[in-house]
Amino acid sequence: MAYDPNNIFARILRGELPKFAVYEDDLTLAFLDIMPATEGHTLVIPKEQAVTIFDVSPEGAAATIRTTQKVAAAVKKAFASPGLMLAQLNGAEAGQSVPHLHFHILPRFQGLDMKLHGRTVADAKVLAPVAEKIRAAL
Amino acid sequence: MAYDPNNIFARILRGELPKFAVYEDDLTLAFLDIMPATEGHTLVIPKEQAVTIFDVSPEGAAATIRTTQKVAAAVKKAFASPGLMLAQLNGAEAGQSVPHLHFHILPRFQGLDMKLHGRTVADAKVLAPVAEKIRAAL
Repeated sequence: MAYDPNNIFARILRGELPKFAVYEDDLTLAFLDIMPATEGHTLVIPKEQAVTIFDVSPEGAAATIRTTQKVAAAVKKAFASPGLMLAQLNGAEAGQSVPHLHFHILPRFQGLDMKLHGRTVADAKVLAPVAEKIRAAL
Repeated sequence: MAYDPNNIFARILRGELPKFAVYEDDLTLAFLDIMPATEGHTLVIPKEQAVTIFDVSPEGAAATIRTTQKVAAAVKKAFASPGLMLAQLNGAEAGQSVPHLHFHILPRFQGLDMKLHGRTVADAKVLAPVAEKIRAAL
């Protein structure tokens, strides 16, 4: 599948759309999912143009998992979540909704059921303090 | 959480328990989940002793995602699955059942619902040809 340079994550990377960033380095960016499945739901993407895990370079994959590891620890700490799930969806049939590779970081609590994708866009007033909490835990 | 050297994946790594291996290198091992959530359900683990994503070294994490990338492509090819999901669960509250870091590789098909963990152990007669199919696609 060809990379669409106008997908929303490409536009976020170019600064054309707002984001609630929690971490950024040369190769990766971490920011809040604006349709959170749970409080603290964060996404990590490579800056490299890659639609799926099959398209990213080994270096890009390594950088993305390194950032995911780092940010996941901060998310867990920020929300004191006993469990934490990483998910990475490839293809519409797997539930991928934005055609730029991303890892979902999802805090998990016993007995709290969860869809992988939230259904409603959260208000900026709700998201801003969540991002701040994660940044503070990094 | 301290690493339990007698967890089932540690025993698989030491060759004390049988496995349906599909790939192995110096740092990682990929083998079939014996309670598959879907045909082709494969696990990738680092050989390093790590309970969760928070415990593994950056090198171990990079090696694990590299193997996951490689084996996921083979699983997708072997089962001609249009979608593919990676999941990685940390802590019982997130559904982690074996205390050794592992990535789930799960082929996905439109409309096929799925639990992350299967509920029944598959017969070796069923698993052996699945492993063979993935090895052939590598």
